[in-house]
Amino acid sequence: MRLPRQLLAEALGTALLLAVVIGSGVMAERLSGGNVALALLANTAATVGGLYVLIEVFGPISGAHFNPAVSAVMAWRGELPRAALLPFVAAQLLGAWAGALLAHAMFELPLLQFSTHVRTGTGQWLAEGVATFGLLLVILRAPAGRAAGLVAAYIGAAYWFTASTSFANPAAVFGRLFSDSFAGIAPASAPGFMLAELAGAALAVVTNRLLAPQPDTRTGPVP
Amino acid sequence: MRLPRQLLAEALGTALLLAVVIGSGVMAERLSGGNVALALLANTAATVGGLYVLIEVFGPISGAHFNPAVSAVMAWRGELPRAALLPFVAAQLLGAWAGALLAHAMFELPLLQFSTHVRTGTGQWLAEGVATFGLLLVILRAPAGRAAGLVAAYIGAAYWFTASTSFANPAAVFGRLFSDSFAGIAPASAPGFMLAELAGAALAVVTNRLLAPQPDTRTGPVP
Amino acid sequence: MRLPRQLLAEALGTALLLAVVIGSGVMAERLSGGNVALALLANTAATVGGLYVLIEVFGPISGAHFNPAVSAVMAWRGELPRAALLPFVAAQLLGAWAGALLAHAMFELPLLQFSTHVRTGTGQWLAEGVATFGLLLVILRAPAGRAAGLVAAYIGAAYWFTASTSFANPAAVFGRLFSDSFAGIAPASAPGFMLAELAGAALAVVTNRLLAPQPDTRTGPVP
Amino acid sequence: MRLPRQLLAEALGTALLLAVVIGSGVMAERLSGGNVALALLANTAATVGGLYVLIEVFGPISGAHFNPAVSAVMAWRGELPRAALLPFVAAQLLGAWAGALLAHAMFELPLLQFSTHVRTGTGQWLAEGVATFGLLLVILRAPAGRAAGLVAAYIGAAYWFTASTSFANPAAVFGRLFSDSFAGIAPASAPGFMLAELAGAALAVVTNRLLAPQPDTRTGPVP
Repeated sequence: MRLPRQLLAEALGTALLLAVVIGSGVMAERLSGGNVALALLANTAATVGGLYVLIEVFGPISGAHFNPAVSAVMAWRGELPRAALLPFVAAQLLGAWAGALLAHAMFELPLLQFSTHVRTGTGQWLAEGVATFGLLLVILRAPAGRAAGLVAAYIGAAYWFTASTSFANPAAVFGRLFSDSFAGIAPASAPGFMLAELAGAALAVVTNRLLAPQPDTRTGPVP
Repeated sequence: MRLPRQLLAEALGTALLLAVVIGSGVMAERLSGGNVALALLANTAATVGGLYVLIEVFGPISGAHFNPAVSAVMAWRGELPRAALLPFVAAQLLGAWAGALLAHAMFELPLLQFSTHVRTGTGQWLAEGVATFGLLLVILRAPAGRAAGLVAAYIGAAYWFTASTSFANPAAVFGRLFSDSFAGIAPASAPGFMLAELAGAALAVVTNRLLAPQPDTRTGPVP
Repeated sequence: MRLPRQLLAEALGTALLLAVVIGSGVMAERLSGGNVALALLANTAATVGGLYVLIEVFGPISGAHFNPAVSAVMAWRGELPRAALLPFVAAQLLGAWAGALLAHAMFELPLLQFSTHVRTGTGQWLAEGVATFGLLLVILRAPAGRAAGLVAAYIGAAYWFTASTSFANPAAVFGRLFSDSFAGIAPASAPGFMLAELAGAALAVVTNRLLAPQPDTRTGPVP
Repeated sequence: MRLPRQLLAEALGTALLLAVVIGSGVMAERLSGGNVALALLANTAATVGGLYVLIEVFGPISGAHFNPAVSAVMAWRGELPRAALLPFVAAQLLGAWAGALLAHAMFELPLLQFSTHVRTGTGQWLAEGVATFGLLLVILRAPAGRAAGLVAAYIGAAYWFTASTSFANPAAVFGRLFSDSFAGIAPASAPGFMLAELAGAALAVVTNRLLAPQPDTRTGPVP
């Protein structure tokens, strides 16, 4: 039974991912003197590099989901045992919160914070849906051995082309609500983002079947 | 007959490509406070990442042309059935327009817009010709398995080294005329760009033969 | 006996690495007109590119450690003969110092300098520990043939997400204390950084075992 | 006899390389409003992307030298027929000049210009020597199939870590003396740069032997 190692990988990987996202946001905000485009560019570059590395390092152990929407789709497709779904999600949420704490500790900020950054509205929700739709489509269709680079490049693009800067991950939303910094999201805005992300993920599953219905017939007819 | 899947791939891929180009342009313009170099740098980074991902994801289905000039060259070379050319181009144009709408919806802008950004003159037309010449040369000569990264890197360079910021794609011109934003092009400027792009593509076909005449002898003598 | 070639590779590679880090810091500081975020972005890009190249070029000769913490872990794991550890570290320290001199000579600065840039405090030390922990985890778990790109991408992310801008290397600390420039560190701050780095490296060794205990059983039980 | 195709590849590739370097420099200078760090960052990104693409595209035909110092080393090592050296260098110089013209035509600048950008002094010459030393070392030791990415990444780093912004190529010096723009070099400064580059290339050949003397014994004893 390798579940403990997998859960450690998911928790540690998600923690480091959130430390990268939040930490680089804090650094970028501090150094950029109010130039938001420059801050987001640095935040993007750090996220792309970090995400690529974390997926390559933890992928062979747990699949490197770091994301409840990804784990849910994998469980639905039978690529993750369904009994592992809840433990995976718990490890991801715990890791995300720990990653926020770690970033705050490194930058000598109060450990426990809540974001005041309101992110809401139909444009933002549509953007989160599109962002997560694209992410899942990339994961489901990435050529063998290229998933890490593709996911990282995708998220880098999505930081800019979606109006929400592409959280695309309910665990990332959870971790970022604990940080009143550049990358944060107000707790009241979190449910809207999470729902939009799950809707986007579901749409990606359907679209993936339309693009190649054969490989998925084992899991039933197209909805 | 896999044409429906291929057309879905071309339409969806071109839509996402235009959403990346236009959406990241809107985001960059909003955040950069008038610093055009910074805005174009962010627009470039997002386009490079997005294009790389879209070609890897949709390439195995349709070839990931997303570009009437590319489809035309492929049909001329016999790598795309000639009967598929018009459906491919229609899917690309429709997708490009849908991508502009999607970007506007995410950023809560009026869905239907026309650009007022005039792009014209011999320098711009030469630049579009050079940009498309280079793009086709890359596509025709990319080593196996490296086309996605090479095309993305090429377009990233061409955003900066051509005076037109390298549309290099009649479908991109079409989609971008529907967006009065950073990445837009005034409708009156579109035909000049499209003609220059087709001329550049044709020159690439000729140059490709000069560089390696043998593989093309099945399609007739060198002009 | 290939040790002389290996020591030349470690000394030359570490010298070029420090020349990249310090030289690009000087250039960035000169050109950026006080925009620290922009300067760090350029410093990051140059370091990522340079590190990737140096690891690919010198890796086949010496392993391209350029870092006493890496050499120590490799010696502890039996992947570097223990008798080679001290010569490796000496070559790295000598190379780091020579790299600082080279950067100063290119930019026509006084060759011998000492940094006045104080970097201290629990946040900085935690950040150095995290930075080196991540670096060693990447090195110990990188898929075959991808270490160079992964290490470079990791350091690029760590320049931004750790509060210390991620030295993650006692030889880099040593070289950078001889440069009163953007990338420098005051000599009095060096021991704290070095200790934090060694602690982070040790934690990575332990974590690596927790993630995959089997391959390491030859070196004794998990602590 | 494939020499004509090879010369076309060298001339066209060098022309496009110089168009990328000079054209992106003009665009960056125009858009950056005097922010030199931002302009050099954009110039770097375009050069890295363009160089990577050009080496992949033209490498299988001619080796994609685009650089008399590289061709000279290859001829000295017997990897280029010595009779091909002068035609290669002529194609490169002609291409470099044509690339400058092409960049000027795209940006509607006077076609024939001479740079007034003086680049001289021991720091600059040392920097050019170091830059070319590193470039040749990378070319001589790149793992199979990775040369294009490594050379591009190296030049990107060298734009920042060498005080001269790393021309590292006598043909690039030649082309850039014909452009009174961001990337230009005054004709009077050209010979110093070219000599420093050749010295750096020679040092790389010697160092390559010290690192791995065996493969070169066919060409005589180590100097």
